[in-house]
Amino acid sequence: MPALNPAFSDIVELLVAVPEGDEAAVAAVRAREGLLTKPAGSLGRLEELVENLARWQYRSSPRLDNPMVTIFAGNHGVTDQGVSPYPREVTAQMVANFTNGGAAISQICALHEINLRVFELALELPTGDITQEAALDDQMCAATIAYGMEAVAGKPDLIGLGEMGIGNTTIAAAIYAALYGGTGADWVGRGTGVDDAGLARKADAVDRALALHKDELTHPLAILARVGGREIAAMLGALIAARHQKAPVVVDGFVATAAAAIAHAVNPAAIDHCIFAHVSAESGHAQVLEHLGKRPLLDLGMRLGEGSGAAMGMVMIKTALHVHNNMSTFADASVTDRTH
Amino acid sequence: MPALNPAFSDIVELLVAVPEGDEAAVAAVRAREGLLTKPAGSLGRLEELVENLARWQYRSSPRLDNPMVTIFAGNHGVTDQGVSPYPREVTAQMVANFTNGGAAISQICALHEINLRVFELALELPTGDITQEAALDDQMCAATIAYGMEAVAGKPDLIGLGEMGIGNTTIAAAIYAALYGGTGADWVGRGTGVDDAGLARKADAVDRALALHKDELTHPLAILARVGGREIAAMLGALIAARHQKAPVVVDGFVATAAAAIAHAVNPAAIDHCIFAHVSAESGHAQVLEHLGKRPLLDLGMRLGEGSGAAMGMVMIKTALHVHNNMSTFADASVTDRTH
Repeated sequence: MPALNPAFSDIVELLVAVPEGDEAAVAAVRAREGLLTKPAGSLGRLEELVENLARWQYRSSPRLDNPMVTIFAGNHGVTDQGVSPYPREVTAQMVANFTNGGAAISQICALHEINLRVFELALELPTGDITQEAALDDQMCAATIAYGMEAVAGKPDLIGLGEMGIGNTTIAAAIYAALYGGTGADWVGRGTGVDDAGLARKADAVDRALALHKDELTHPLAILARVGGREIAAMLGALIAARHQKAPVVVDGFVATAAAAIAHAVNPAAIDHCIFAHVSAESGHAQVLEHLGKRPLLDLGMRLGEGSGAAMGMVMIKTALHVHNNMSTFADASVTDRTH
Repeated sequence: MPALNPAFSDIVELLVAVPEGDEAAVAAVRAREGLLTKPAGSLGRLEELVENLARWQYRSSPRLDNPMVTIFAGNHGVTDQGVSPYPREVTAQMVANFTNGGAAISQICALHEINLRVFELALELPTGDITQEAALDDQMCAATIAYGMEAVAGKPDLIGLGEMGIGNTTIAAAIYAALYGGTGADWVGRGTGVDDAGLARKADAVDRALALHKDELTHPLAILARVGGREIAAMLGALIAARHQKAPVVVDGFVATAAAAIAHAVNPAAIDHCIFAHVSAESGHAQVLEHLGKRPLLDLGMRLGEGSGAAMGMVMIKTALHVHNNMSTFADASVTDRTH
């Protein structure tokens, strides 16, 4: 079994030595919740969301001055295997569309005043076709993770992780199969809408990739390099940096969750600061969330990617915090609290 | 078996003769969806929500110029049976809190620019204690339904139905037991947070009410008068008027759904224009939704009432419509559509 490439040592270190959350801040939020004019606990998960902000922002009074959705875009050699009904050029075209305001994510963010940043990852240089070769060499994979860390340097106080990349549901399926076992058919789904033949090509591509790389899938980061992709590596970097920079993370759907799954496989506690915004309609996502022990916030049958599910989750979080910060207390509103 | 009181004739008529939806408007929305820069169907239920607006607004280009949450507040004689940890005065105190901006619903509506209207229903005159007498006589019940119809005269283009009333989860449980069978214990839950003894008192109150009125629970509207409440009757009126005024309805939680359940029991098609915003943490709500054949939009463990779940659903609907109206088409954005 080959040892893990030393290029990954710093990344493993950051995943293992994760700071714990601020339980004193959580207690402060809970104390305020108890004074607000509603029965204790009656806002359910909205209250949990505020506690989560407090815990991972390390603030008794959490803030959302700079909520940000990030979209990492990459291209994939595996599209040569006919795994998507869209040509690879669409990745770059959609990047322009995100910026020009024409995409779903652009409009969700515009309506709800969430910042949007798009990171292109060498779109003109697709990763290796995983059925033929490694997606990335270890050095490039480590460098891409590091790039993702820098990408969140703008001090967001909440980060949504999204992605764009024609072919990347096949890549995510390969990562899940490598991490959790099973065949391609257990993990691939319709993605942007392949027909039955396309679905079979996706499953076959995953199976061939796993067979080709089987002796080298010995560590979660080795899996990421062999059968992963640039946007997934960069999201992993962003997820890691966010933890160390005191920014809670909101993870999007089937592909974005692959970054969290890599982190979780190194150290389950490394994703404690992550909220999983929704369960995607992409078959397989619900299984992954079960492996991670995470309950998604929303179940809206979405399967678009580009951070759209993460943004919807962030709307819930923004609302929860606004309510927490602006409701009256029983005393201020002269409302009688429970008598027994 | 007593005949239905003629006071209810007009209401039954409006429930039976409901207009159908505008399928041409739905087709127009679907046609536009197909041009937008995303894979077909990839926004899942968000797309359905826009279709639903089109269908019940009778508009190919649905609008949300005047989304409105309504809160109907009533008091209940059954609180004499110790069914709530809060005293009855809290209903009026919370009405003031809604208006003054201190309540959760006030803040959700403020953040998302949703109008909020509160209707007080004779708070100084609680309904009869259903364990001892009818909640309302038939004339008063019919008049309250009619009042609810008038309450939506402000031409909302989307109406959220919410309520406030100390004791009203016991009332809703009695309605469900009368409509669907079972005992009090099958339908009562913790409401605002009763302990085990309080829960037993709620179940017992429902059982005694059903025994007392058993010969008169012969029609859904008779059930509403005997074991219901003013806010539920008024919500029923609003739900009916909305259908005839081309405004889709968003139903809140356990108590608001009782109004829809009465309508559904008269004519299942009478609630086709209703979206069920969420499944409440109040035990029993999920069962009711199953009886109605409706899948809730959200599952956030909320159990506050006051239209808070409906408002969260309306945020989803607002977002869905904004995305639909403002995304670019493949042609406009020069994005290549699927090639196979």
